Amino acid sequence: MARFGFDRVVICGIGLIGSSLARALRRAHQAGGAAGAGVIVGIDRDAAGLARAIELGVIDEAVSLEAAPSSGFSAPNVSPAATAAVASADVVVLAAPVAQTEALLAAFAPSLAADVLITDVGSTKAAVAAAALRVLGARADRFVAGHPIAGGEASGVDAGRATLFDGRDVILCPSTQTAADAAARAQALWQAVGARPAIMTPEQHDRIFASVSHLPHLLAFAFIEHILKSDGADERFAFAGSGFRDFTRIAASNPEMWRDICLANRDALLDDLDHYVAVLSTLRAAVADGDAQALDAMFARSREAREDWRQGETLAERLDRHG
Amino acid sequence: MARFGFDRVVICGIGLIGSSLARALRRAHQAGGAAGAGVIVGIDRDAAGLARAIELGVIDEAVSLEAAPSSGFSAPNVSPAATAAVASADVVVLAAPVAQTEALLAAFAPSLAADVLITDVGSTKAAVAAAALRVLGARADRFVAGHPIAGGEASGVDAGRATLFDGRDVILCPSTQTAADAAARAQALWQAVGARPAIMTPEQHDRIFASVSHLPHLLAFAFIEHILKSDGADERFAFAGSGFRDFTRIAASNPEMWRDICLANRDALLDDLDHYVAVLSTLRAAVADGDAQALDAMFARSREAREDWRQGETLAERLDRHG
Repeated sequence: MARFGFDRVVICGIGLIGSSLARALRRAHQAGGAAGAGVIVGIDRDAAGLARAIELGVIDEAVSLEAAPSSGFSAPNVSPAATAAVASADVVVLAAPVAQTEALLAAFAPSLAADVLITDVGSTKAAVAAAALRVLGARADRFVAGHPIAGGEASGVDAGRATLFDGRDVILCPSTQTAADAAARAQALWQAVGARPAIMTPEQHDRIFASVSHLPHLLAFAFIEHILKSDGADERFAFAGSGFRDFTRIAASNPEMWRDICLANRDALLDDLDHYVAVLSTLRAAVADGDAQALDAMFARSREAREDWRQGETLAERLDRHG
Repeated sequence: MARFGFDRVVICGIGLIGSSLARALRRAHQAGGAAGAGVIVGIDRDAAGLARAIELGVIDEAVSLEAAPSSGFSAPNVSPAATAAVASADVVVLAAPVAQTEALLAAFAPSLAADVLITDVGSTKAAVAAAALRVLGARADRFVAGHPIAGGEASGVDAGRATLFDGRDVILCPSTQTAADAAARAQALWQAVGARPAIMTPEQHDRIFASVSHLPHLLAFAFIEHILKSDGADERFAFAGSGFRDFTRIAASNPEMWRDICLANRDALLDDLDHYVAVLSTLRAAVADGDAQALDAMFARSREAREDWRQGETLAERLDRHG
């Protein structure tokens, strides 16, 4: 039933994640792994990005997403070439901005083969899972929502690399309609590129990533905005050091992508933000009251938890290395 | 009038900053620079740290701060050996936790030579400057408050290095009482260890560093506390990735040091925190209202400012390297 080789993988969106997945699948194929990809087809709305992906050998075939270019903010006019590419695919991976996921699923649904695996790499999962159930119709059993925990503030095909997913978690959220073989193939796909699959519900995913990823991005963007709107902003930036550098690195992330994530995961993000602001408010009171003991206790607790986290990460990495 | 060689430098507090300064002054002396230090004396309350500093060759002489050990949280019982060490010094640098600065200045004041330079490395400056005017008496003209913009979350004598200040800013805050030659010698001291002096008032310093250093630390500590107090905290930590890692690196900083900084710079920090929370509140409304345009504009503005900052830093580093 399950076919764990992937003769023809179509990746829609050849940016950092899409192009890294293409490179990593090619690496797996060259290594002779059963789950490597034979032919990799890239679909994108950006002709220059596609040409670059061909030039770099990242993809074997390039297909324009649209017959005629549309605005970057509207739903794509999916081309006949793109639907034809999808029709002959063993696997279709959506790696375009999350706000386009529903329109792409709807456009591709009628062309998908009965035994296809269709998945995505978006940073939020509840909205994607709901969209898939709404628009995939008879193919809803072939969809497995996914999210590789890898990336960076760089974007575009040149930023991708074959090792991006090595040792990284990938969250998979099969729905109650998902066929067992589709879920198994999604796991095999990510294992082939070095990632460690973890299964959870879309809601569980969105709660966790609201707090460990989406909220920090929001806080970092807001922090730069705060300095920009302060008196003497230039002088403040001039004396910012290494603590500032690391704290704000994620404020250099793609604005369109993070706008979409904030909106797609709005409820979990707002819950998390409100909880954070309540913690800040307690901390503010301790500073205002000169409560040295409360500050000491809280800072020590945070430091210890951060150190435990860091050592956990190191331990996991060691286990990975030494088998 | 001004003597720009430093025959005998006493450093009180041989931690990350104090021991790095000792190493860098030794490096300058060995390179034959006019401002290197001949003899470096370390004063500390921690006997093991002093022994380690001698063993590493970081200091030439070790002096116990206290005749009898006191609690880490109370004012030190300064030993006769420490006051004698200070009496024969050309330069005295206070590199102990900021909360001890006033007690140390008061204890050392009667012993200081008439042409000494006395300075500190604390992360807040208005409280230190006020304390110096209060307790230094006739030696207030010899004090120059200072703050090297260098460090890291590691602490202790083993974490120090001779290159820590290379190309870094050091803020100097001479008061209206400071003698011109003392201010000039403070500049020469920091230039000898590779730092770039910038002069400002203590209040200006505290406003700037409240926003680019103290607030990010507070926000990072609060962020870890927020996750600790969330449902399923372990699971959240388990899926935290590289964005989380960089954003929270400063939450591994020394709790005692940051407690003292928050309290010493309370007014500027609270002003800054309130301004930040107001920005967050505007951002929250944009997320809640689904205002994609407002989010896009704000994120794009933050990203651009962060990129400008990063490129400014790179340019400065290049200028440093290529003269």
